[in-house]
Amino acid sequence: MAQHALRGGVDLGGTKIQTVVVDAEHQVLGQARRSTPTDGGPPDVMGAIEEAMREATDQAGVPPGNLNGVGIGAPGAIDEESGSLARAGNLPGWREAYPLASELGARLGTRVLLGNDVQVATDAEFTLGAGREFDSVLGVFWGTGVGGGIVLDRRPWLGRGAAGEIGHVVVKPHGAHCPCGRRGCMEAYAGRRAMESRARKAHDEGEKTILFKLMEERGRDRLTSGVWSRAIERGDELATRLVDEAVAAMGVGVASTCNVLDVDAVIIGGGMGVRFGEPYARRIMDAMMPHLFHDDAPPAMRVAELGDLGGALGGALLVVDAVPA
Amino acid sequence: MAQHALRGGVDLGGTKIQTVVVDAEHQVLGQARRSTPTDGGPPDVMGAIEEAMREATDQAGVPPGNLNGVGIGAPGAIDEESGSLARAGNLPGWREAYPLASELGARLGTRVLLGNDVQVATDAEFTLGAGREFDSVLGVFWGTGVGGGIVLDRRPWLGRGAAGEIGHVVVKPHGAHCPCGRRGCMEAYAGRRAMESRARKAHDEGEKTILFKLMEERGRDRLTSGVWSRAIERGDELATRLVDEAVAAMGVGVASTCNVLDVDAVIIGGGMGVRFGEPYARRIMDAMMPHLFHDDAPPAMRVAELGDLGGALGGALLVVDAVPA
Repeated sequence: MAQHALRGGVDLGGTKIQTVVVDAEHQVLGQARRSTPTDGGPPDVMGAIEEAMREATDQAGVPPGNLNGVGIGAPGAIDEESGSLARAGNLPGWREAYPLASELGARLGTRVLLGNDVQVATDAEFTLGAGREFDSVLGVFWGTGVGGGIVLDRRPWLGRGAAGEIGHVVVKPHGAHCPCGRRGCMEAYAGRRAMESRARKAHDEGEKTILFKLMEERGRDRLTSGVWSRAIERGDELATRLVDEAVAAMGVGVASTCNVLDVDAVIIGGGMGVRFGEPYARRIMDAMMPHLFHDDAPPAMRVAELGDLGGALGGALLVVDAVPA
Repeated sequence: MAQHALRGGVDLGGTKIQTVVVDAEHQVLGQARRSTPTDGGPPDVMGAIEEAMREATDQAGVPPGNLNGVGIGAPGAIDEESGSLARAGNLPGWREAYPLASELGARLGTRVLLGNDVQVATDAEFTLGAGREFDSVLGVFWGTGVGGGIVLDRRPWLGRGAAGEIGHVVVKPHGAHCPCGRRGCMEAYAGRRAMESRARKAHDEGEKTILFKLMEERGRDRLTSGVWSRAIERGDELATRLVDEAVAAMGVGVASTCNVLDVDAVIIGGGMGVRFGEPYARRIMDAMMPHLFHDDAPPAMRVAELGDLGGALGGALLVVDAVPA
């Protein structure tokens, strides 16, 4: 296969940077992962991306400059025209717009494209994963926060650039505080960060839980999906109650969104979504049913299939869409 | 102008049937209105549509058979392929599918097309009215119920045929009973039918209000938009509180929908929306602001411009889209 048909993809997350090199059939020829720098600024983060991309291209046996392009799924505010990224709250010191596409493109010697992280992960599931058989999907990425991606009539729907904020559908007016500063958002109940705050508060107020003990045993400094999962397996009441509340909140918010969009399918992804898997996707659907207007024709419900590489594979799809090989 | 460039449009509502005949520039050459039959079944309703259509074509000086087609904005479940309408709960005896397009088409001697009533009204505002300057709009029709229509990237979004049910976005889980049988829907607070139920219950429980006295004075048997408006002008506390609750509910539901869709503009229509007009559109926007994720870039807010003819003009647009003149 000609090297110029190869593409790079990057999932730029607050915790890790995942890169892939894929061929025209989306087969992974190389992959690498780095922890996202926790201090510094955009140039430091870009350095880590470059390193991880070069490791993946080495594995694939292609110089980065021979790639047909590199697509990055990124958090924050993306200006596609200028290829800049701003207000990426989960990345260190990344408030002002930084010309990531041009700077990284110059270093790697290839074209760099930016897309919204959740949207590219949804596009990947739509094109290559759990959404292959459908024409319209709603991706619900249940992780640190709750992100949403939308594909309608086989095309991403981005709105004015900020569509898909399903985590901030209001599920309880004047309800729980959300990390976004508002109240009653779906993410205030279902986002892992918000769930941890709620657990910590209950624990501080004397409620018994093994969540934080499990966290320490596993050498973690936050309640990972694995910690939540383990606590529930062991019958921890607080963990069970908070996850039940998360499922109920997603039932309300995802059903409301489906009443508006009437998509073919909902795809549940993200760290929590994939960890909890099919049984919880069914529970979310059960929680949606009382709120679905057309409950005789609910959308299909699927768990994301592409795992940890989904975001990076979606990044690589940006190159397919923009630059025919 | 050649007669074959003329089109018919019908707004088939639970209370009235409005027809128009328009030319290629969407100018109204004839119009008529009938009360929707309150008993009988589909043939009776179809008879009333035919009468109203013939009155409009007489005005326009064209035999119905010379129209390029007639488009109907209809409530209920539409099968576009077969041109049948089913489950139109607001029309008498209209549960089973009835082949409205072919039957009425045979009577009028022209092609008849069916579209969802709220969607065609949204299309009319998008093409000819308050949405002209935008590429994507959310139509919110605040009337007996609360209907929604969606235009994305200049095209209607219908989902699997049932998109736009913004009235059934959940604004308060386990909240007020909605006419749809569920609880806590936006329509349970903002739909005129639900508002009347709430007013009647409060009145029966002894709360003072002039709503029902105004209704009787005006010779009505239900709380019309005009009755609500008059009661508020006179400082009626119950009416004021219920309309405040309606505005708050729309703030939550429309903001949540905008967080997902990120449209250019929201258009407020319907009997209540048009009666209350700009000041209440501003109040709805104010109520949305605390829940908008991107509150630095709220959508534009407009009141529908096409008035009582909007639905029928939207019906006529179905012919433009389907049958080039």
